Formats: sequence, C-alpha cells, structure tokens
Amino acid sequence: MNALDGPSYEDVALARERIAPLVHDTPVATCHALDRACNAAVFLKCENLQRTGSFKFRGASNAIACLTKAERERGVITHSSGNHAQALALAARLHGVSATVVVPEDAPRAKREAAAGYGARVVPCPPTQADRRDTTRRLIEESGAVFVDSHDAVAVIAGQATAAVDLIESAGPFDVLLTPVGGGGLLSGTTIAAETLVPSAQVIGCEPEGADDAYRSLRDGKRIAEVQSRTIADGLKTSLGERTFRILSEHGTRIVLVSDAQIVSAMRFVWERMKLVIEPSSAIAVAPLLFGTLPVGGKRVGVILSGGNVSLDAAFAAMYPGLGSR
Amino acid sequence: MNALDGPSYEDVALARERIAPLVHDTPVATCHALDRACNAAVFLKCENLQRTGSFKFRGASNAIACLTKAERERGVITHSSGNHAQALALAARLHGVSATVVVPEDAPRAKREAAAGYGARVVPCPPTQADRRDTTRRLIEESGAVFVDSHDAVAVIAGQATAAVDLIESAGPFDVLLTPVGGGGLLSGTTIAAETLVPSAQVIGCEPEGADDAYRSLRDGKRIAEVQSRTIADGLKTSLGERTFRILSEHGTRIVLVSDAQIVSAMRFVWERMKLVIEPSSAIAVAPLLFGTLPVGGKRVGVILSGGNVSLDAAFAAMYPGLGSR
Repeated sequence: MNALDGPSYEDVALARERIAPLVHDTPVATCHALDRACNAAVFLKCENLQRTGSFKFRGASNAIACLTKAERERGVITHSSGNHAQALALAARLHGVSATVVVPEDAPRAKREAAAGYGARVVPCPPTQADRRDTTRRLIEESGAVFVDSHDAVAVIAGQATAAVDLIESAGPFDVLLTPVGGGGLLSGTTIAAETLVPSAQVIGCEPEGADDAYRSLRDGKRIAEVQSRTIADGLKTSLGERTFRILSEHGTRIVLVSDAQIVSAMRFVWERMKLVIEPSSAIAVAPLLFGTLPVGGKRVGVILSGGNVSLDAAFAAMYPGLGSR
Repeated sequence: MNALDGPSYEDVALARERIAPLVHDTPVATCHALDRACNAAVFLKCENLQRTGSFKFRGASNAIACLTKAERERGVITHSSGNHAQALALAARLHGVSATVVVPEDAPRAKREAAAGYGARVVPCPPTQADRRDTTRRLIEESGAVFVDSHDAVAVIAGQATAAVDLIESAGPFDVLLTPVGGGGLLSGTTIAAETLVPSAQVIGCEPEGADDAYRSLRDGKRIAEVQSRTIADGLKTSLGERTFRILSEHGTRIVLVSDAQIVSAMRFVWERMKLVIEPSSAIAVAPLLFGTLPVGGKRVGVILSGGNVSLDAAFAAMYPGLGSR
C-alpha cells in the first residue's frame, strides 16, 4: 500500500452506489457518419448532459459523500478552471456543505458564473497553476475548509471512473476507450474501470499538442508538474497529478496528441451532425476517430464526451446580430 | 368523407408501424432550470436527434412507404426550405427511390448540402412560395415524379403525428402540448394524436410574430395562403395548407405568437443549459414557457423539439477565428 495508490475497482463500485441518487444516467449516443469516418462502431457517453454539464459532478459528488460530519461542517474548497468548480459547488449544495472555488481569471465566464449560481463562493486568481495553489492555500489557512483536488484525490478518481463503468455496462464490451486527459482523473478512473471490466481494451488519453505534459511525462517516465499550455481546450491545461501519473504509468496508458484545428473540426462535427453541444476538451476524444490518427477499423470504440460547458456569447452574437446578446 | 379530411388515429397508428424500422427512438429530455422557469413539469421530445436532424423524417418515411411500386419507379419530388427536403432525400434513398428537391435560394446552406448528401437532386429556385410551386410543377411535367407535399399530404401528417404518440407513450399524460407551426403538418398530427391519447390536453401551435398566417387564418376562419414572412425561424415561413387549416379549424387548435428575440433567447437557453443544438423553429416552442407568455403552473407539458439543422458557419468563425471555418 502506497500513499499514491489509486482507488481499487471495489472503490469505484462503492462510489457508483454512493452517487447513484444524485447523478444523471446520461445517454450513450451513436452516429452513422462517425462510424463511417473511422469504419468502427463508436459509442459516446454523453457526460455533457451530466448535471453541471460535465463528468466532474461524479468525482465531486463522491468526494463530498465520503466526508465526515466534522469535515462537512468545515466546508470544501478547490481550484479549477471551471468544470470541477461547478461540480463541487452543486455537489456541496446538495449535501448542505458550503463551498469555495478558486477560478483562474481566464476561465470561461459561463463556467465561473455557473459555480456562483450553484451557491459557491467564487474567488478569482491569476491564471498559473502556482497562483491557483497559493490562493487556495491562503484560503484554507483562513477558513479550515477541506481541499477537494480536481483530479488527484482517490475519491475523485473513483467517482470519475463511474462514467466508464456506466458506458461499458450499457454498450460494452469495447476494444478501445478514449477520454480526454488534463489532470488525468478521468483517464485514470477509466483505466481502473477497464482493467476489471474490459481487460483487453486499450485505454487512450487524448491531449492537446499545446499542453502535452502527460504525453511527455509518460514517455520519459518523469512527471512534468508545470506546463506552459497553449490550447483552446481550457479544461485540459492542468498537468497530471502525482497519483494520476503513477496510475497511468503503471498501466502503460497511451496518449495521442491532437491539434487545436482538429479539436475545432471535431467539435463542429459533433454539434452539426449529432446536435450535441460539447466543449473543446470533449471534442479532443472524437478527433482521432475523425482524422484517422488512430486506426480503429472494425473495432468497438467507447468515447467519453466529457462536458458541454462553452461560452456561447460570441456564437450567438455572430449568428443573430442584435438579437443574440443577452 | 371529404377530400380534405386529415388522417384518423388509426392511420397514425399504421404510420407508426410502417416507419418503426427506420426512425430513431429519440430521447425525451427534461431540465430543472426550465421546470423552475415555468413552474411546470416539461418533457421535450428530441426530434433534433431524429435522422436527418428533424421530425420531418417521420412524415417523409411514411409517405414513401405508402407509394405503389409504379409510383416508386417514377421517383418523388418536393419543394422545401430544407428539413423536409433532407428527410425526403434520405427516406427515398432508404427505399431505393430517386428524389428531386426544389430548395429556395435563401435556405440555410447546411440544409441544402445535406439533401444533396443523401443523394437527392437539388434544384434551387427563387424564395417565394409561388416560385417553389412553379419550379416543382415544371419538373413534374418533365419527369413524372410523384409530389410529396411537406405538410398537407395525409401520409405526411400521419407520420408527423407519431412524434407526439411516442412522447405521450413515454412521458404522458399531458395537460399541454406545444409544437411549432409553419405549414401545420406537425401541429395537425399532434392534434390528431392528442385527441385520442390525451383528449383533455390543450394542443398549442407556436408561430413567429413575423409569419403569423396560422394565427390570423384560424382567428378569422379564412386561410391566408401567402404570407410575407419576416422571421429567423426559416422552417416556419410556409403558410398553412388547405388540409392542415381544416384540421386545426375543426379542432379549435390555439396559436401563440413568439418574437424573434424570444426565439433566440430560448434557443440559447437550450444550447447552454440542455447542451442540445436546436434550430430557431424548435426554440419557438420553448419560448412561451421561458417567458411566461403561456401560464402552465403546476401542469405537465410536452414539447416537440422539432429539429436541429442550423448553419454553424458564423458561430464557429466567431468562436475560433482562424480555426473555425472549414
């Protein structure tokens, strides 16, 4: 037993029971045009339709469900570019726990506002990882709140893993499972779920070329803790954590890199053909199928569409000038 | 028996059997924020996720399934601002029938291209109703193709009615049913379905203020065959047909008018909160719930989200300059 061990599959199964009363049973979508594009059978788990608009609600709900009474009374705190912040805010409210979220100033407005809308105290900070941590540390010292990490906490990883469990249960088995990778919570959880449920499946993380710390960390066997990220996938700017790096290293999880242009094309494909609003961080896991970067011919492929929180200000202003702004 | 009689409920039930192997069983969505906004329980039938991106695939599929062998060999033809064109194109292809669609030049590019993508011959025409009819008549004289009207054919109305039947079966009963109204095929079909399945429900058509022919026709008891339409809801510029006018008149179906600004707000709400891409012609049936134009407090409300075919060119160019265009 190591302090950096991930959750076991039993922990994932427990998380699933714990959060079942709260999470949406999101649909699994299919698309003829996508299947044709990659000559495979693709099943997409619509976590953009999850509460708070992303899978992050699973991990946050499990983390809060695991707190002791004394911890609940202290309240919870996190830093997040957005989706984990919203997720923790709602999960906390549903458990009657107060929440503080530290959000970088460059996070999409829609994500910041949503966290506040769920009743959390939103504290802005400069956009670097170091600033996020410093601001959070200061607030913890002041308030005694319990920190719920966005990706490296065991309870959070176990919660994120439940998306893959649901997907496999309703549409499995799979030969390939694709998820985005930022901090690595979803990818680690999916790896752990797959190990037990579809042991022969290849689990692959999709990462922006402009934020390729996971790719380089796993290739070199050494975690890059800070990355100068340049990508439109705002949810994937976080580096792997110590625990997620360890889980992914041990399992030999593979990473594919995706350009921003491919992310936008895949995002547009999903909006246009599947009528689903997904964010860039989700489209990244569709891109390798559309552009042939990943040969999957004849295979059964599962994809986690991680979220749909994207600011629509520019889109509506452009589509309906004079009508589209609020 | 009158030449303008609508389909009976038995015709609708037969249509449902006929098209069952082809149509998607689209999900029914709910949204806490929408329920709160109108203090009701709202269930939205996601026909934006129907094949070809709209409910029109139901009516077109039923119309083609009803053709004789000799008629199938002649091929089919229609004029449509877009969704019926796509729907007929795919339904024809799936039955091995050739299709010609006359599409006004001002129809969204995405809709025109999709019809061609499904293998139909696309013939552009000037944007008035008269031009659409003239061009179509000329082509019928040349080719002998069978005309499949977008809204006034019995088989088409029976097919469109199946959306409401599915919705009522999976989430009914309802006190109120809302659909958009353009040519009146969906609204007539919904009225006929409701008459048998939820006879106490109020069926209401939602029409753009800038294309209010159905509202005025039903109010004055006299069909307005041509309307100078000014609305962003491109799918709702058609006037009621003789048959749909008769069905709606006989049933006393009510119409509510919606402004373009309300349509855009409702559309944005559904994209942002429900993560579903819907077109303006669908958002119109959500707007009366969001803006309190229709008091539905404490009621069970069914809405048909009719389609999701909207050009994303401007949206992606604005969201991702340099990346967003194809």
